[in-house]
Amino acid sequence: MNERLARTIAAIKASGADWGLFTSPDGVAYSTGHIVSIEAGPSPFAGGPSLAIIGTDGQCGLVVTNLEGGTPSWADRIVTYEGFSYKDPTDVFANYRTAAAEMAKELGIGGVIAIDEQSFPLSLLPLVERFSRVSVEPAFKRERAIKSKTEIVLLREAALTASAGQRAFLQAARAGRSELEIFADVRLAMESRIGERLPVTGDLISGKERTSAFMGWPGNRRIATGDPLICDLAPRVQGYWGDSCASAMIGTPSPGFLKLYSAAKSALKLAIETVRPGVVIGALDRSLQDHIHRHGYSYAHHSGHSIGTGVHEWPRLVAYERETLKKDMVIMVEPTALDPDIGGVRLEFMLHVTDDGCEILTDFAHQPGI
Amino acid sequence: MNERLARTIAAIKASGADWGLFTSPDGVAYSTGHIVSIEAGPSPFAGGPSLAIIGTDGQCGLVVTNLEGGTPSWADRIVTYEGFSYKDPTDVFANYRTAAAEMAKELGIGGVIAIDEQSFPLSLLPLVERFSRVSVEPAFKRERAIKSKTEIVLLREAALTASAGQRAFLQAARAGRSELEIFADVRLAMESRIGERLPVTGDLISGKERTSAFMGWPGNRRIATGDPLICDLAPRVQGYWGDSCASAMIGTPSPGFLKLYSAAKSALKLAIETVRPGVVIGALDRSLQDHIHRHGYSYAHHSGHSIGTGVHEWPRLVAYERETLKKDMVIMVEPTALDPDIGGVRLEFMLHVTDDGCEILTDFAHQPGI
Repeated sequence: MNERLARTIAAIKASGADWGLFTSPDGVAYSTGHIVSIEAGPSPFAGGPSLAIIGTDGQCGLVVTNLEGGTPSWADRIVTYEGFSYKDPTDVFANYRTAAAEMAKELGIGGVIAIDEQSFPLSLLPLVERFSRVSVEPAFKRERAIKSKTEIVLLREAALTASAGQRAFLQAARAGRSELEIFADVRLAMESRIGERLPVTGDLISGKERTSAFMGWPGNRRIATGDPLICDLAPRVQGYWGDSCASAMIGTPSPGFLKLYSAAKSALKLAIETVRPGVVIGALDRSLQDHIHRHGYSYAHHSGHSIGTGVHEWPRLVAYERETLKKDMVIMVEPTALDPDIGGVRLEFMLHVTDDGCEILTDFAHQPGI
Repeated sequence: MNERLARTIAAIKASGADWGLFTSPDGVAYSTGHIVSIEAGPSPFAGGPSLAIIGTDGQCGLVVTNLEGGTPSWADRIVTYEGFSYKDPTDVFANYRTAAAEMAKELGIGGVIAIDEQSFPLSLLPLVERFSRVSVEPAFKRERAIKSKTEIVLLREAALTASAGQRAFLQAARAGRSELEIFADVRLAMESRIGERLPVTGDLISGKERTSAFMGWPGNRRIATGDPLICDLAPRVQGYWGDSCASAMIGTPSPGFLKLYSAAKSALKLAIETVRPGVVIGALDRSLQDHIHRHGYSYAHHSGHSIGTGVHEWPRLVAYERETLKKDMVIMVEPTALDPDIGGVRLEFMLHVTDDGCEILTDFAHQPGI
């Protein structure tokens, strides 16, 4: 049995349920391997809502539009419904509900039903209203936190794609170009590596003010010599997110920027040396925050997060997190140093927690000469 | 009162309800003016789920994350809830439900409640379960079909943005470049015009096989002399979608391609001459299908669709549609001519239905020399 399906079943059982129904894009992707299209948001051509129904006996059912019927997944039953069409009148939404009911009946769901509470639509209530229901989320997030071998392969690919974007960023960031012009080169490098359009989130910001506010998408601002830049790239590749952050200064970096960069870089080094199974996550966050504060800079951010079919997964690297790191977690570590007089530096690598330390999955280098 | 709010209220009343609750991205955007972020799908930084509660007395309430509290809308009450945070433990989903319940209580909703049935989450059922409920969709789609003056301004801007992308397409499409390379230039032209990242859907396909299958996103395929190309661009600008389609052949167009192009071009001309209030939409679709068939080509597509905060809105230009065109509808017309031995041509303009004809909102020209 697919390991993610097995972990989904473990989460359904840990929730005290017999069946699990999943409706969120990342929940469907995790439990069935069917990658839900999200690049341009809800789109008539990207497929309608999908539904995964998982039984604790290993049955894995998937409901998708006819447009998506041939896409890969490990579902052993697929019911498709008519999505985009033009020849005869059709009601996509009614088709979805009918197909979902058909799948529920075919599989014979019953007992206690675990649902993806945050995304479960009221329209599917008739499928589950005569059964008792529980939220699968508390158990599901724990199962998802430990990645399988296949997931590590997929996350490495996403990390290498983000890294290709970061190399393009260091090449493309030149005085006179706009943030959007640089971002077009960066995005093209990532998309050409995979050969398709990719959902991409993150930041591309320049100048003292924008980088010390630390978050934002690219605009028409033109880069000048002496500008600090932050490029945070999170592409989704084959359903799995990569993430990364690089910072740079155009031209010869100022002494103030070098100090700022050095604080973030040494914090990242500290994190890489610290990460291993058993480390309390809140303590790791506090040690990075303290490190930056000792250098005299502020740090208005978390220190990172887990990553998988969701871009931010549990556990996040925040001061109040009491969970410990475990083998085969994949985490982002992203120390930030901010100084309103200079700007911001954020450096972020993707780390795979191994038996006795960590492996860096991203493979881009820092700005040459820093 | 804002005209879209007034139309939303008209739809709630026509549904036989006293209050309306909206949860879909386009429903929230239409009813409150709050533009829901969708570019990279659900994102921890792009805001959580939102909710609009509209009373037939004109009250307009909006529930969004703290990240979005300052974004424009015409809501007279806004309740924000904590979304992304790192200092103290928070449950974004519980925050959303609490904020939604607070808003419902503040406004004093009651009587009959109209809901956005396709997207309404089960988690908000406690807000409405003691009231009777109806679906707002049948009335809402009719109200939304007639655009206000402000909406025409927004749609014109989206059409001009799509047109800037189409001009970039004709410039960027050269032998030796990949579809993704061309698309990067096209996207940059649209995004630079607006100064921000834009959700973009559509197609960019090349070669006989891909264009005669007529749909698809760009990949690494390299363009060769003699290749037909289709570029369909739908950017979302300030919450309103633009749409457009151009076709081209690299190098000197072949006689076969010129004939194919001419069939689609004359069909588009026929549509522009035909469109006026009172025309039965199904008859328009059939006349365009017939026109293409008389030229000896196939046409496996609808003839167009309405457009607004949703990229495909009702009414669509399909053979079974008995609705007539009305003043201030904004429709896409997109005749297609396909020949498996040559490829495909699709030409699409955005038309605003006026008192006695139509105005073309897009402003790009056909491939020079065709």
